[in-house]
Amino acid sequence: MTDTTNTSAKPPLRIALAGLGTVGAGVIRLMEANADLIARRAGRPVVVTVVSARDRLRNRGVDLSPYAWEDDMTGIAARDDVDVVVELVGGSDGPALTLARNAIAQGKALVTANKAMIAHHGMALAQAAEARGVAMRFEAAVAGGIPVIKGLREGAAANRVERLYGILNGTCNYILSTMEDTGRDFAEVLDEAQQKGYAEADPTFDIEGIDAAHKLSILSAIAFGAKIDFASVDTQGISRILAADIAQADALGYCIRLIGTAEADAGPDGTPGLFQRVAPHLVHFDNLLAHVDGPTNAVVVEGNFSGRLLFQGAGAGDGPTASAVVADIIDIARGMDTGFEADMAFSIPVAGLEDMAPAPSGHRLGRSYIRFFVADRPGVLAEITAAMRDAGVSIESLIQKGRAGEGGEVLVALVTHEGPESAVSEALRLLDGSPSIVGQPLVMQILGA
Amino acid sequence: MTDTTNTSAKPPLRIALAGLGTVGAGVIRLMEANADLIARRAGRPVVVTVVSARDRLRNRGVDLSPYAWEDDMTGIAARDDVDVVVELVGGSDGPALTLARNAIAQGKALVTANKAMIAHHGMALAQAAEARGVAMRFEAAVAGGIPVIKGLREGAAANRVERLYGILNGTCNYILSTMEDTGRDFAEVLDEAQQKGYAEADPTFDIEGIDAAHKLSILSAIAFGAKIDFASVDTQGISRILAADIAQADALGYCIRLIGTAEADAGPDGTPGLFQRVAPHLVHFDNLLAHVDGPTNAVVVEGNFSGRLLFQGAGAGDGPTASAVVADIIDIARGMDTGFEADMAFSIPVAGLEDMAPAPSGHRLGRSYIRFFVADRPGVLAEITAAMRDAGVSIESLIQKGRAGEGGEVLVALVTHEGPESAVSEALRLLDGSPSIVGQPLVMQILGA
Repeated sequence: MTDTTNTSAKPPLRIALAGLGTVGAGVIRLMEANADLIARRAGRPVVVTVVSARDRLRNRGVDLSPYAWEDDMTGIAARDDVDVVVELVGGSDGPALTLARNAIAQGKALVTANKAMIAHHGMALAQAAEARGVAMRFEAAVAGGIPVIKGLREGAAANRVERLYGILNGTCNYILSTMEDTGRDFAEVLDEAQQKGYAEADPTFDIEGIDAAHKLSILSAIAFGAKIDFASVDTQGISRILAADIAQADALGYCIRLIGTAEADAGPDGTPGLFQRVAPHLVHFDNLLAHVDGPTNAVVVEGNFSGRLLFQGAGAGDGPTASAVVADIIDIARGMDTGFEADMAFSIPVAGLEDMAPAPSGHRLGRSYIRFFVADRPGVLAEITAAMRDAGVSIESLIQKGRAGEGGEVLVALVTHEGPESAVSEALRLLDGSPSIVGQPLVMQILGA
Repeated sequence: MTDTTNTSAKPPLRIALAGLGTVGAGVIRLMEANADLIARRAGRPVVVTVVSARDRLRNRGVDLSPYAWEDDMTGIAARDDVDVVVELVGGSDGPALTLARNAIAQGKALVTANKAMIAHHGMALAQAAEARGVAMRFEAAVAGGIPVIKGLREGAAANRVERLYGILNGTCNYILSTMEDTGRDFAEVLDEAQQKGYAEADPTFDIEGIDAAHKLSILSAIAFGAKIDFASVDTQGISRILAADIAQADALGYCIRLIGTAEADAGPDGTPGLFQRVAPHLVHFDNLLAHVDGPTNAVVVEGNFSGRLLFQGAGAGDGPTASAVVADIIDIARGMDTGFEADMAFSIPVAGLEDMAPAPSGHRLGRSYIRFFVADRPGVLAEITAAMRDAGVSIESLIQKGRAGEGGEVLVALVTHEGPESAVSEALRLLDGSPSIVGQPLVMQILGA
């Protein structure tokens, strides 16, 4: 029996904060604004004792004078006045990883918002944390302020997860929903997103789906009790999507969203495997995710007893991400008297996580959207439809539409009936090298209601 | 440092299950179907040792032979082979409450899905649990399978909650969304809901908003760090809503949903208070909650750093509710080595919860929908609009529509500009007793995008 009514009776939990970018400054603002409430909920005061960043002199809009400063970011873990190291430096390797390893080695709890580091090194870090008996938490690494890691690891813990899917990258979602609202093309909207700060100067990680794949691989591990396998995520970005694709999708009753999907899949021969894909999808207007606009994230978890659970909120930003970071800190404060926190990073100890083989996609049944640009001459449609027939692809609808392109090409978009993805691949193989078809066709899977 | 890799090395967590209705049978099915996975995630096996219900012989579709049986439901707490008592009996008082008190007194953890009991006796039970150092959990009491209590208590723990609102009763949401889809009237749809099992034989608790008010009062306590105050929830049901109201709302760009709202509100004189209301609202088509159809629940939490978080899923049913019950059990298993679980029922110890006075509603600013039936004769509209003017209510739109009623009454529906609720009340007071107005006007608040 413990007495936590008087929170000041317990020693404070002491935080070292490394990385003072947008999120780091947000964490300081949050911990100052909500200090009393955090102390009550954590059962003890929570105080930042030391901070570190690359540039001491940069104005971050927060007063750093109450905190000790360390120039050596990776050295803060060794300090006696630190219980929890919060890593907000970023980057899968380099100083962030060194700091994370140091923190665990020094017996400090680790809180991080670093999806790239967790996607690449999460298993090794979690194993080290378990061995050392310290907690490691990364709620802020996935879906900003949305407590979806907690929702999966604890809220849905009674379920076998059958599938999870979601919108995991706010930049892509902002771009796609803005293309939808304005009818403008990708490059123009990306440019605007960069000006507004919704996209980075180098947007590759976001628009090519890599950031979403980092997050998906982390969620998959927790949902399916598997080791993180980022390298096996089938990843496609959004840079090839045209305003014309969005218009076609809209006419058919769909919007286009970058969707991450993970599913335990027995495969064609019954071998258990894990299917992971990040790709733009046509999303039916009646699907929960069709109403997720702007830089919002949303994750659907389908459990074998819970049914569909939706978690939605701001996918990025200083406030929401700081909210997730400090929630992890409060959890660590609450659980400080037990060693069990150390085993919970991925819901079960790392040694119990399965090595699930990547599931192939060819046997998966689904409907596809396929868009070609073709030369405007007789016989092209006959060639495409013959290839579909020969590959066993059944066409549900087909639209041919003129395009004001320089070469006078014509857009042909078709939607298939449900069938194996391998049949679509075969049809495209049959059409490969056809002089009628201009450039690479674009294929998107369809997510129903 | 603990070793939980070998979960069988730890003694099992032993469960007593009281109440074997739909949810109780669901819990047994879930624990059988997902036993291995639960053991891995809980860090130890979780086993049902004893069950109890009113009627031993009823066929529940589950095999009860592996479990001991107790005729005396309230006596199971005294058994040596029980660590956690799961109360699924229902009812705010009677055997459920006796069992809950006995469980805590005997030093057993308590898990319950009983919203009425928690709304009425949650403070006393939580205080007893803290004093005895045992955990008390009730995730399944609010919003079925959605981990919203965990989301509030832990996921959003770093935030001062500014407002929470949501759809907390699946029966009402099914009825309202079906009225919307079919154009049928309330009584007819209620009848169908009862036949389908979506509404109880006595639907009063659901359709009059009492069930939603129970749930709202529980969420409020956690969100605002206040003592549960169910009696102060301003509660209106949905039985007076007509197909004509839904049609009017639709024409204006809204659907109608039963919404529970809670907000810390300083009141007109600055006195801190807690505003809690359950009432049908017009919900703008662009609001997150406008797409919540059928027996689904959804809760929006607005935190001062997280921004808007949405939690959505099945609000009832054996599978989802069992999912929440067993999530609580797994949490208790994970936290068994610490006494802190005992202090977490309402996020902070009961002694720290504030006695927040109920906030008045008159000064609250909002837009209202007001529907009258009036005698079909000259001057009625002048009378209504004059009363609005005299009370300071500014009218945004007004529709008058004939009705095929027996008395030849005419429907008048108006939407106000933003203004204090007290002005609308004053306008209705001015019109009270007018021979032109048939029956009681219906007022609904408007929830924007």
